[in-house]
Amino acid sequence: MPTSATFVARLQRALGDDAVLTDPSELAAYGSDRCRGDWPIAPTVVARPIDELGVTSVVRVCAEEGVAIVPSGGRTGLAGGAAAPNGECVLSLERMRRILAVDAAGRLLRAQAGATVEDVQLAASAHGLLYPVDFAAKGSAQIGGSIATNAGGVRVLRYGSTRAWVSGLRVVLANGEAVELGGSLVKDNTGYDLRQLFIGSEGTLGVIVEATLRLTQPPPGLVTVLCAVASEPAILELFARMQRALVLQAFEFFDHACLEHVLAHRDRSGGPFAEPAQYYVLVEVESESQSTDAMRARVMETLEAATAAGEITDAVISASSVQARELWSLREDISESLHRHRPHKNDIALPVARVAEFMSQWRPLVRRLLPGAQALVFGHIGDGNLHLNVLPPPDMEPAAFVARCRTYDAEAYALVHDFSGSISAEHGIGLLKREHLHFSRDAAQIAAMRAIKLAFDPHGLFNPGKLFQAGA
Amino acid sequence: MPTSATFVARLQRALGDDAVLTDPSELAAYGSDRCRGDWPIAPTVVARPIDELGVTSVVRVCAEEGVAIVPSGGRTGLAGGAAAPNGECVLSLERMRRILAVDAAGRLLRAQAGATVEDVQLAASAHGLLYPVDFAAKGSAQIGGSIATNAGGVRVLRYGSTRAWVSGLRVVLANGEAVELGGSLVKDNTGYDLRQLFIGSEGTLGVIVEATLRLTQPPPGLVTVLCAVASEPAILELFARMQRALVLQAFEFFDHACLEHVLAHRDRSGGPFAEPAQYYVLVEVESESQSTDAMRARVMETLEAATAAGEITDAVISASSVQARELWSLREDISESLHRHRPHKNDIALPVARVAEFMSQWRPLVRRLLPGAQALVFGHIGDGNLHLNVLPPPDMEPAAFVARCRTYDAEAYALVHDFSGSISAEHGIGLLKREHLHFSRDAAQIAAMRAIKLAFDPHGLFNPGKLFQAGA
Repeated sequence: MPTSATFVARLQRALGDDAVLTDPSELAAYGSDRCRGDWPIAPTVVARPIDELGVTSVVRVCAEEGVAIVPSGGRTGLAGGAAAPNGECVLSLERMRRILAVDAAGRLLRAQAGATVEDVQLAASAHGLLYPVDFAAKGSAQIGGSIATNAGGVRVLRYGSTRAWVSGLRVVLANGEAVELGGSLVKDNTGYDLRQLFIGSEGTLGVIVEATLRLTQPPPGLVTVLCAVASEPAILELFARMQRALVLQAFEFFDHACLEHVLAHRDRSGGPFAEPAQYYVLVEVESESQSTDAMRARVMETLEAATAAGEITDAVISASSVQARELWSLREDISESLHRHRPHKNDIALPVARVAEFMSQWRPLVRRLLPGAQALVFGHIGDGNLHLNVLPPPDMEPAAFVARCRTYDAEAYALVHDFSGSISAEHGIGLLKREHLHFSRDAAQIAAMRAIKLAFDPHGLFNPGKLFQAGA
Repeated sequence: MPTSATFVARLQRALGDDAVLTDPSELAAYGSDRCRGDWPIAPTVVARPIDELGVTSVVRVCAEEGVAIVPSGGRTGLAGGAAAPNGECVLSLERMRRILAVDAAGRLLRAQAGATVEDVQLAASAHGLLYPVDFAAKGSAQIGGSIATNAGGVRVLRYGSTRAWVSGLRVVLANGEAVELGGSLVKDNTGYDLRQLFIGSEGTLGVIVEATLRLTQPPPGLVTVLCAVASEPAILELFARMQRALVLQAFEFFDHACLEHVLAHRDRSGGPFAEPAQYYVLVEVESESQSTDAMRARVMETLEAATAAGEITDAVISASSVQARELWSLREDISESLHRHRPHKNDIALPVARVAEFMSQWRPLVRRLLPGAQALVFGHIGDGNLHLNVLPPPDMEPAAFVARCRTYDAEAYALVHDFSGSISAEHGIGLLKREHLHFSRDAAQIAAMRAIKLAFDPHGLFNPGKLFQAGA
């Protein structure tokens, strides 16, 4: 994408010199998210406005100069949604990170798009309230990006995804105009809910500059449990049992191979249980009062029944918040402990009832297509969301593994399709999965999405090539 | 809208004679909803298919013959969204009312669009589960229509509007193709959430033929309270107090004039309290166990504190489910008791914190523009949703009152706009409020809505003239 000689100068005039980065190391840093794809990292420029006026200036200059815009948050995404492979202008929201207002009585918080999810959580917490969307990258992930990707995380089971917590959005459209979608109202039935289109749009329809978020009361207390589970069907039986008896904040699982990697990463050999199990389930239960004794007793009862039914072989209930954090870390450290092995990842969703059956077909598929590779699975089983990980065989060249994974992806996604699942539960499509979109969306839906894209962004200004091929 | 001589014959061939109604009394019945507007009731024909194939046939025949379609549910709407004023084909879903499946473990229910909201509630209840969207017209309102209007009701405070409970939709588009949007997945981040566009679209984008709905566990017990409240600000103070201390299922209010109408309608003089109050608040509190004794004690404590703070002057706690129903009927019978007086209604939403201030400006506005008219207000104050009612002065001609209400509407909606409110919290825009849409949506948003309409329905087949003027 060639840019005119005056383009960078115009941006500098509009925003000030310090707001425009062109240094190669900076272009490299801002031109990619946490997804390593086979596309180049090649933005022309990084624009870092400090206010909405600056954002509208960037949009207008880019529209006039024919330079595409990649809206950019914390770049913690795992699908290349924030990648700039083709001479784009990266529009970073990082200098717009103010918490603008907290309405404690109305349980609403207004923030600029560049505030991190953790900034929002802390501001809510200072008023005794909870912003319940929670995921590992929250310290870097920005609220704008988390909305544009409809971020999920570990408490979707209890609170839903980001979509459920967005009351209002302020968005800059392709014509440079800012528009307020929704607001602080609980109810508003006045036509199409445009705000919903922007949630999960991956920056393809406009730039989110501010958001009004709903808050809730935090649970009085929590009880954390780790269970050793013998089989895939037992995980689902345990889930049904616990969901009937208790209010679950989280129901996470991981297989024994995941646990081994976490322990190896920490240079430890002893796991949480004397006997290893095939799977482990981490459950967080909501308590009605700050004193969790009564809830611990109820959890114990449920676990005894689950043991009698053969669903679990062992369990630990946290006795303190320190112990709860230790149990959580066994789940949360998985991604980091796998990182050095360069795993191939898939983030899929299935109807919850079919998770066990899927896993029993997925493991043979890995053995067949990627012999010698280690298959690991963990995720948010209460949402039907599995994070499938495959580690390259020790003797395989990285390039050969990547090539093999292409074939594997197509077959794995076809299996997901057969199970009425989704090829992306949380991470989005970005550049990484756009060629596979048809496994989750049929031709009529993709046509409808293209028509919407065209209606909002007729000249392909915003994040072209993400979600689907530009122009095609 | 002239129709070709063969049009009705083609419909009869496609659907069978008994599925096509042309009798004037039937046209009159199917050509209107519960909104009395100044438009004619003039459909050409009523088509009542029994399956999706029938719906697609109607869409294809109408598209080819150039006859517009009014998708038609229980026609309980209050904004003329289901009105057929201009020779349209009314497409009634009433013969597609099967509950197709209940997945109790997954807490999902699949129904045809013509099932009533009550059908869905009962089917969920048979599995010990709850479909929590609840409103007075549930026995007639169909699930498809309730989705197309994003129905609210008395438990939005606890459970959100219909939008929060729609997992998947099956929709017939303008080209006659059926498409499945969403499904039974909890998570699916694969592009624009098209399902959200159809929720609240008032039949302007396509015909909903099936829906997958989420269910939840019913609360173990409920405690119902009626409070006498001295002032508008006290209502909000009481709301904040109770919301902090308890899990509220509903927080409804009505003024003394509403209570008088309900009592008069029943030929009774004695109200629930010895001394009349300015306002009454009906609160439903969730109990953690079936035995509500502990919760009643907690509610009592909260009410004592509210009394000490001067927020309430009296209160009744239900001692039985019969008594709870009796308290609820004081709120639920308001609309019926006002009906014979031919009230002019507005259904507005405001930021909750500004409700009291709004009411203090609204009453003088009624006195100024409609002298002699009685102003009444009730609604879902926990959602900021007020149902404003104005009864014509006894000596005013109906036509004169309707004319005066035009001026009143414009000023009332301007006031709503000044308070950052919505001109329609629940009822929708339909034909009734389309000229006022600009008070809630700015030009950029209306343009975006038109662009979406054009993308889905380029020839204006579905419900033309609803939400906004057709073609303009």
